[in-house]
Amino acid sequence: MVKVGIVGGTGYTGVELLRLLAQHPQAEVVVITSRSEAGMPVAEMYPNLRGHYDGLAFSVPDVKTLGACDVVFFATPHGVAHALAGELLAAGTKVIDLSADFRLQDPVEWAKWYGQPHGAPQLLQDAVYGLPEVNREQIKNARLIAVPGCYPTATQLGFLPLLEAGIADNTRLIADCKSGVSGAGRGLSIGSLYSEANESFKAYAVKGHRHLPEITQGLRRAAGGDIGLTFVPHLVPMIRGIHSTLYATVADRSVDLQALFEKRYADEPFVDVMPAGSHPETRSVRGANVCRIAVHRPQGGDLVVVLSVIDNLVKGASGQAVQNMNILFGLDERAGLSHAGMMP
Amino acid sequence: MVKVGIVGGTGYTGVELLRLLAQHPQAEVVVITSRSEAGMPVAEMYPNLRGHYDGLAFSVPDVKTLGACDVVFFATPHGVAHALAGELLAAGTKVIDLSADFRLQDPVEWAKWYGQPHGAPQLLQDAVYGLPEVNREQIKNARLIAVPGCYPTATQLGFLPLLEAGIADNTRLIADCKSGVSGAGRGLSIGSLYSEANESFKAYAVKGHRHLPEITQGLRRAAGGDIGLTFVPHLVPMIRGIHSTLYATVADRSVDLQALFEKRYADEPFVDVMPAGSHPETRSVRGANVCRIAVHRPQGGDLVVVLSVIDNLVKGASGQAVQNMNILFGLDERAGLSHAGMMP
Amino acid sequence: MVKVGIVGGTGYTGVELLRLLAQHPQAEVVVITSRSEAGMPVAEMYPNLRGHYDGLAFSVPDVKTLGACDVVFFATPHGVAHALAGELLAAGTKVIDLSADFRLQDPVEWAKWYGQPHGAPQLLQDAVYGLPEVNREQIKNARLIAVPGCYPTATQLGFLPLLEAGIADNTRLIADCKSGVSGAGRGLSIGSLYSEANESFKAYAVKGHRHLPEITQGLRRAAGGDIGLTFVPHLVPMIRGIHSTLYATVADRSVDLQALFEKRYADEPFVDVMPAGSHPETRSVRGANVCRIAVHRPQGGDLVVVLSVIDNLVKGASGQAVQNMNILFGLDERAGLSHAGMMP
Amino acid sequence: MVKVGIVGGTGYTGVELLRLLAQHPQAEVVVITSRSEAGMPVAEMYPNLRGHYDGLAFSVPDVKTLGACDVVFFATPHGVAHALAGELLAAGTKVIDLSADFRLQDPVEWAKWYGQPHGAPQLLQDAVYGLPEVNREQIKNARLIAVPGCYPTATQLGFLPLLEAGIADNTRLIADCKSGVSGAGRGLSIGSLYSEANESFKAYAVKGHRHLPEITQGLRRAAGGDIGLTFVPHLVPMIRGIHSTLYATVADRSVDLQALFEKRYADEPFVDVMPAGSHPETRSVRGANVCRIAVHRPQGGDLVVVLSVIDNLVKGASGQAVQNMNILFGLDERAGLSHAGMMP
Repeated sequence: MVKVGIVGGTGYTGVELLRLLAQHPQAEVVVITSRSEAGMPVAEMYPNLRGHYDGLAFSVPDVKTLGACDVVFFATPHGVAHALAGELLAAGTKVIDLSADFRLQDPVEWAKWYGQPHGAPQLLQDAVYGLPEVNREQIKNARLIAVPGCYPTATQLGFLPLLEAGIADNTRLIADCKSGVSGAGRGLSIGSLYSEANESFKAYAVKGHRHLPEITQGLRRAAGGDIGLTFVPHLVPMIRGIHSTLYATVADRSVDLQALFEKRYADEPFVDVMPAGSHPETRSVRGANVCRIAVHRPQGGDLVVVLSVIDNLVKGASGQAVQNMNILFGLDERAGLSHAGMMP
Repeated sequence: MVKVGIVGGTGYTGVELLRLLAQHPQAEVVVITSRSEAGMPVAEMYPNLRGHYDGLAFSVPDVKTLGACDVVFFATPHGVAHALAGELLAAGTKVIDLSADFRLQDPVEWAKWYGQPHGAPQLLQDAVYGLPEVNREQIKNARLIAVPGCYPTATQLGFLPLLEAGIADNTRLIADCKSGVSGAGRGLSIGSLYSEANESFKAYAVKGHRHLPEITQGLRRAAGGDIGLTFVPHLVPMIRGIHSTLYATVADRSVDLQALFEKRYADEPFVDVMPAGSHPETRSVRGANVCRIAVHRPQGGDLVVVLSVIDNLVKGASGQAVQNMNILFGLDERAGLSHAGMMP
Repeated sequence: MVKVGIVGGTGYTGVELLRLLAQHPQAEVVVITSRSEAGMPVAEMYPNLRGHYDGLAFSVPDVKTLGACDVVFFATPHGVAHALAGELLAAGTKVIDLSADFRLQDPVEWAKWYGQPHGAPQLLQDAVYGLPEVNREQIKNARLIAVPGCYPTATQLGFLPLLEAGIADNTRLIADCKSGVSGAGRGLSIGSLYSEANESFKAYAVKGHRHLPEITQGLRRAAGGDIGLTFVPHLVPMIRGIHSTLYATVADRSVDLQALFEKRYADEPFVDVMPAGSHPETRSVRGANVCRIAVHRPQGGDLVVVLSVIDNLVKGASGQAVQNMNILFGLDERAGLSHAGMMP
Repeated sequence: MVKVGIVGGTGYTGVELLRLLAQHPQAEVVVITSRSEAGMPVAEMYPNLRGHYDGLAFSVPDVKTLGACDVVFFATPHGVAHALAGELLAAGTKVIDLSADFRLQDPVEWAKWYGQPHGAPQLLQDAVYGLPEVNREQIKNARLIAVPGCYPTATQLGFLPLLEAGIADNTRLIADCKSGVSGAGRGLSIGSLYSEANESFKAYAVKGHRHLPEITQGLRRAAGGDIGLTFVPHLVPMIRGIHSTLYATVADRSVDLQALFEKRYADEPFVDVMPAGSHPETRSVRGANVCRIAVHRPQGGDLVVVLSVIDNLVKGASGQAVQNMNILFGLDERAGLSHAGMMP
């Protein structure tokens, strides 16, 4: 039984970790922290968990208690893992960070996008980017894992086959991405209010979104060189789901794109390449740790369109975090993650 | 391994059975029928099931194949189970009917509300009303189970403690009920269109809804005599969920209602009596086989208000059907139904 | 041209006043205040108003400027109008208050429900409760108008014909009410977040809601004596709309309820009694200053069910405020309010 | 007073015409047809119109009655206007067609995309494409107007300034477009059901959508030559709204895009170029006849991103149709269309 701690469990990725781990046959949440809600039973804040964690209450974060866990998940705003990860690692506890703290290899780039100095640059050499479809071997032996962001997961998985095969014009990639509102978290902001977000659609952060450097870093690795990416995120009036619509120029029209994608992900338990002509819906992955992908070449032109969907809170956050834990502890990679999505 | 057949699997209760049974450790769906979609793989119609039922396709209903199952679920419009159940029972197959065909004990009453003669009155003596919180013992030995409707489940579970205790004025009960749109099924009707149902709220069928006689029948049993019920259903712009707001006059203000409810459901795995003062949200049971209940006495008056919520497709249909199957086959009643609801 | 000032224009009733008054042929908004947003053009905060109020920006509230208006609307949290109304009235400016400050005639009752002393009890004798269907004559000569709340408008208009006719058992009235999320305003609270409110339904404040004493006060007037009311509000995942489902016992089954309601509202421009058997939808009044009502006697019993719908921001707030202004200044009562609701 | 007839008034563009024309000071709807609903009062089908069209009922289409109108709107599926327009034109009645029947100049292209022969090729020489921002002068003297589709309106208005200025690489234009569900009309289809469309997001018709040739035709005119366009439509869980996210390469980074767009639309009453850095929301135009546009150059690169939003039922259909009528009859172009959008 893997002893699990969660730091910052009151947000949406926190409750989703609890929901998923409640079904995990080989993991047990022994501590969950929240400074603001210390003392409150988790099932009081999240009544969907009533009957599942009846002894568990939020506690003040404490390195000693957390350090007694086999693994600690950070479901926190950026900056928190910087401050605590080092001590936990020193105590021999593995750290799986769902925040952005260790996703960018370059601390200067991190500081630029997050508006503050990187708080733990000395740990970056140990940080493994937790996208199993790319880094499964490194994850097995990691002690600090940076779980990818939601947009970056859907977008990288959609672009990877093209970039690894070297068949796209890497200088003009476009990711037109759409996210449900839970992607903005449970924090209070006017834009996240029901009466503001419902029955409307908009782009945001066209000038530059924090996920841009993370996606760029991943695509560079895949391409083995520089890439040019335009990333435009949009807000969709739905709770969960990311839909990345990806555009790349592939001049060679003889490439069998369907075969390329199917081969790339043939052994991946959580990437589903749909049949040619498909249009994946975000609801088909609601609650499930799956990325579904379809590839199109509209009107037979040289522009390829890739459609990639995930549940931002599962494959885009907490599910992927559990998947990393499974790999890290030598468990069945599917443990706790084998349920189907919820339709309707 | 219980061999399961499903008749009429293309609707919402059908796909929900598939979703739940995919996680069931002791049941296996071996046949699923649909006249209109015969030949289509289930995962093509419901891509959330991709990877879960890859060999399974809809087939034309056939008594021989169905009769080889241990149990057959009917997820069909009313009338279909009337026609087929007899033959299956004769073949020794158990029948769990999610439709309204065997819910009313009186075939004349059935004919009145459904506008056609009852098609199998000879089977009514064998039909057990599958509300485990009332009929668990009969279910164990049943061969034909009528799974309660969604409104009836939420409403009966909310009223039962009051009626069984004989403390309410049974002549003036009110059930003001609200349902998500999936309660209307996957059939094509103008009122179920997104642009008609979204951003609006309305009552419907105030004159008389088909669930009225079913609720009345159940409450009579609980009260041990006649009751008077006004039932007003409403349509809520959400996919899943039933919220019953129940009103009953309990003149004796010394009754400890909270204790009464907690005691009534103390041993029930799928009824959750919430702490005094609670307001259960339908999302707290989304996807889960749970009924959550809270009881209030506003302003200390003699009118008691009970709030009762379920997911109409789970505890209100397919989950309750699986619960019945578990009881019927002597399995752990929680098997395949132990997951938490999905919030957010 | 009526010169209009608005205090507290950044909330939903504020922007709705602006939307409605932009179409008003005889009124002009000359000042709109907001302490927090002073200096910001209104069309920057509410881009739907671009091209309609291009010279208008929020300003710091200032009695002199406001006092130069013919009428000032308060679209503020409770307490603000208490502080400012007196000075404006002294300057000869009419005050139309959309907040709860002057709705209750009894300042002790007000203090009990709002948790603070009443700030202007000396003005209560001048305050007219602005429900035109009851107080049209008093409104004509008022200088201070308390615009009814949203639940109270829908609920009173639904109950009035029964109570005025003296045919109901006034001791056991029930108002099961449902509101869209905009009823909670634009303030930041977890419960108003999209990911919390969407795809869910719940009751709230069953113990006691601030609109209870307001409704009770109005029904007492109509009944000419004491009444007993249970009021249970619910939250609906939609932006706009109130649906009141009202229950009253009318033992005399010979009463022609349809005729009673039609007669009561025959001359009312903004109350629409629908044909017998109707189920009014909230969307049918979306954006419009209309209350639609249907009356039922289900199963021919002695319990009468009234369905009453409004748009909480229009007939439940800003539209009714404009209607009051029209009456007060001797304008056509329909001015600026004659547009149809928006379907779909 | 312009005498107006409407053919096919039961759909969403039909009811929206009625809503808008109810406020029009110089137009009067005298006949509205529907074969299937003949005899039903319009306010029975659309209760938002109660009190606005109380004498008006749907009638069987009849050339004589329609031919007595000054103008007839077709709010019909494709093919209907082909059959009827000729006779009406011969009777001297103007025709404004909201369907696709006369949008494409090439009848062969039309037949290819609509799967049937063009039914009135002889009228194509008279048909004016009713995009006032391009063809205002021709509209003034037209007798047959083809109102642009919803995607084409938002997309053309967004691209036009770039293409007319000749500064973009016209061979690689991308339109990533998102539509609310009402764009699919009121017809019964599984994909338009609430429980299918809500809480999900998907692309559709990536292979080729019927609006592609219409957009291409318009962009060719603007560019004065061939263009290459990839058009990917998506379905958003909201009732109304189109958001076009447009991508074009503009190598010359010295171009002042903001000034270019502002100048192009300086005199347009219904196109709003927002300040630099803006992200227009579809709700800001809900119910209003406005297209709001913002132009971006993310990260200072050579890829320009244009954001363009409309209400698909107003500027994307019925509002634009009324705008055309105003131009055609020499009325104020804003008549009946001057109201603000509805937020929230």
